[in-house]
Amino acid sequence: MSAAAYHPPLDELQACAWFNTPRPLTLAGLRGEVVVIHAFQMLCPGCVSQGLPQAQRLHHQLGDRVKVLGVHTVFEHHEVMTPAALQAFLAEYRISFPVAVDQPDPARRLPRSMQAWQLQGTPSLIVLDRRGRVRLHQFGHVDDLQLGLVLGMLLAEEGEAAAEAAAPPTVPAAATCADGLCGAPR
Amino acid sequence: MSAAAYHPPLDELQACAWFNTPRPLTLAGLRGEVVVIHAFQMLCPGCVSQGLPQAQRLHHQLGDRVKVLGVHTVFEHHEVMTPAALQAFLAEYRISFPVAVDQPDPARRLPRSMQAWQLQGTPSLIVLDRRGRVRLHQFGHVDDLQLGLVLGMLLAEEGEAAAEAAAPPTVPAAATCADGLCGAPR
Amino acid sequence: MSAAAYHPPLDELQACAWFNTPRPLTLAGLRGEVVVIHAFQMLCPGCVSQGLPQAQRLHHQLGDRVKVLGVHTVFEHHEVMTPAALQAFLAEYRISFPVAVDQPDPARRLPRSMQAWQLQGTPSLIVLDRRGRVRLHQFGHVDDLQLGLVLGMLLAEEGEAAAEAAAPPTVPAAATCADGLCGAPR
Amino acid sequence: MSAAAYHPPLDELQACAWFNTPRPLTLAGLRGEVVVIHAFQMLCPGCVSQGLPQAQRLHHQLGDRVKVLGVHTVFEHHEVMTPAALQAFLAEYRISFPVAVDQPDPARRLPRSMQAWQLQGTPSLIVLDRRGRVRLHQFGHVDDLQLGLVLGMLLAEEGEAAAEAAAPPTVPAAATCADGLCGAPR
Repeated sequence: MSAAAYHPPLDELQACAWFNTPRPLTLAGLRGEVVVIHAFQMLCPGCVSQGLPQAQRLHHQLGDRVKVLGVHTVFEHHEVMTPAALQAFLAEYRISFPVAVDQPDPARRLPRSMQAWQLQGTPSLIVLDRRGRVRLHQFGHVDDLQLGLVLGMLLAEEGEAAAEAAAPPTVPAAATCADGLCGAPR
Repeated sequence: MSAAAYHPPLDELQACAWFNTPRPLTLAGLRGEVVVIHAFQMLCPGCVSQGLPQAQRLHHQLGDRVKVLGVHTVFEHHEVMTPAALQAFLAEYRISFPVAVDQPDPARRLPRSMQAWQLQGTPSLIVLDRRGRVRLHQFGHVDDLQLGLVLGMLLAEEGEAAAEAAAPPTVPAAATCADGLCGAPR
Repeated sequence: MSAAAYHPPLDELQACAWFNTPRPLTLAGLRGEVVVIHAFQMLCPGCVSQGLPQAQRLHHQLGDRVKVLGVHTVFEHHEVMTPAALQAFLAEYRISFPVAVDQPDPARRLPRSMQAWQLQGTPSLIVLDRRGRVRLHQFGHVDDLQLGLVLGMLLAEEGEAAAEAAAPPTVPAAATCADGLCGAPR
Repeated sequence: MSAAAYHPPLDELQACAWFNTPRPLTLAGLRGEVVVIHAFQMLCPGCVSQGLPQAQRLHHQLGDRVKVLGVHTVFEHHEVMTPAALQAFLAEYRISFPVAVDQPDPARRLPRSMQAWQLQGTPSLIVLDRRGRVRLHQFGHVDDLQLGLVLGMLLAEEGEAAAEAAAPPTVPAAATCADGLCGAPR
């Protein structure tokens, strides 16, 4: 690890409601895990078309190695993006990872975690390493290749044996040749 | 690194022609780098629609950290998938990473590297770590998230400082809110 | 027109609110036009990903020849898919064609137009000819080619001169060759 | 039909080889049918990614009402885009509609039909009405909605009863609610 690189910790999440989890989560409680925080709004088109599908994909594919967390950071249309509306949205879109509702701030449009984390809008992505330090902090879409790369590096840092993780996937004995694949004659 | 994991080396590439490189490459010469080998045929639909665009994306985004290598492993339609045809194909599709033509074997349909590497067809993906050992060996498409993850882990192994690599991308001071993004009021 | 084909008229739309129109519309008032009714719910994933983008595309490309009408047929999550929530949704997704809110029925989950039209769910598409008769009535996605075909046939029926409509689009004098096009040498 | 619109006939196709048809076709012989001519080159990226899939979709969905014809108009890389290479290409991509090889002109790079039809490059689309007159003539991609519309109008002109064609598709009795559809309670 370079001595020059500075990776600040992230202020604790301030949530007023949770979905898809039996009990509230805290960033402190997730120390030791690589955490991906996806900040979104249910009426934000870019979140619905790109950010949330990516988070769901991540949760499905890597949920045993990376902790995916949604945070509903409502900063507009507060009156209709309520926790009840979010609950219906999560059910319809079959979002299955834990989602927190960012604590509203009566004095401002932006909710509290969004303020503390200095998010510029939605979707935003924050990735924390096992020590809870911010390693990626981005407004807008991060493509899968880049996100996978960052996660792979963080997983390889202190802890997980890269060897296990990168073990060649088992190739089916008789791979079929549909979907444009060209199978070689044996 | 787990003692149990066995990662064999890959037999040297046997090439009879090269494109997009001033001189022939060898796997031995690439030792010390993470190498992604994309085996394809120019008339394989899955290669054209998925594999090659991914390899090109990889080369554009990560070409300074990962070596991308195409290998044209012709095992059917030999008479029309010639090096001259490949050259036209590479120009039309603007493929810019180095591409080798796998050495034909007069006695068999499969070319020599394809035989040695026991490829099942095209597209196939092989990822080598810095020591030249096979860490991913897959027939068919590997999605970007999975591929990024493997590459991130291999880059983090001995050598590259993960800290540098995963440094948070600079977020533009005034990110615009086009493309479905929702910008927060300041 | 075949004597055998039976194309029933559609019961009048029962709306309790409108967006994107200075005044309420009626199907009776649209007689003489080919009308495309897109029934949707703002929290229905298939509507958001396919149906509404298609309706918007239709409105942009053919809005001067076909009347596109959205109808918000809420039959679930009534408490959160309110007109106010719909208004925020339409603004965020930049939906610009007229959208009606289907009149709720206090006695049933399904709103009144949805009942009368016997819709099976959302998204649903109904196409009316110039006489107000139902010519397409489909639950689920109708692809662009099929929808374009139906609309072309209805436009050609009594009224619009097909000649005008199908006039060859002007080809730019100097078409560029980006995006995979191959320009011929002159 | 407006008196002002001028729709010229198209010079007869000059082909030196055919695929996917038991015998050569002529435009004259197709009089009475709406014909879609897709001019392409097998190494043209825009043809492979957009034009040919559209033509194949058209052939599958509307092949009983519209005649789809491919024309391989080679104007570059002549030495590798041979009829033998085209044959392998058509097999790999499972193109099933008739495809002609445009007659080369020893004196020029452009083949003869391409010259006569004044095509600007590939992909190009020409649509003929039942009388063999040009109703669409476009270099580059035409989207499905626009193409469907033109075809619908031409099918409705003299001949096919629009009523039949636009008959509402049968909706399955018990439509399932997968793929983001929301089924209404009965």
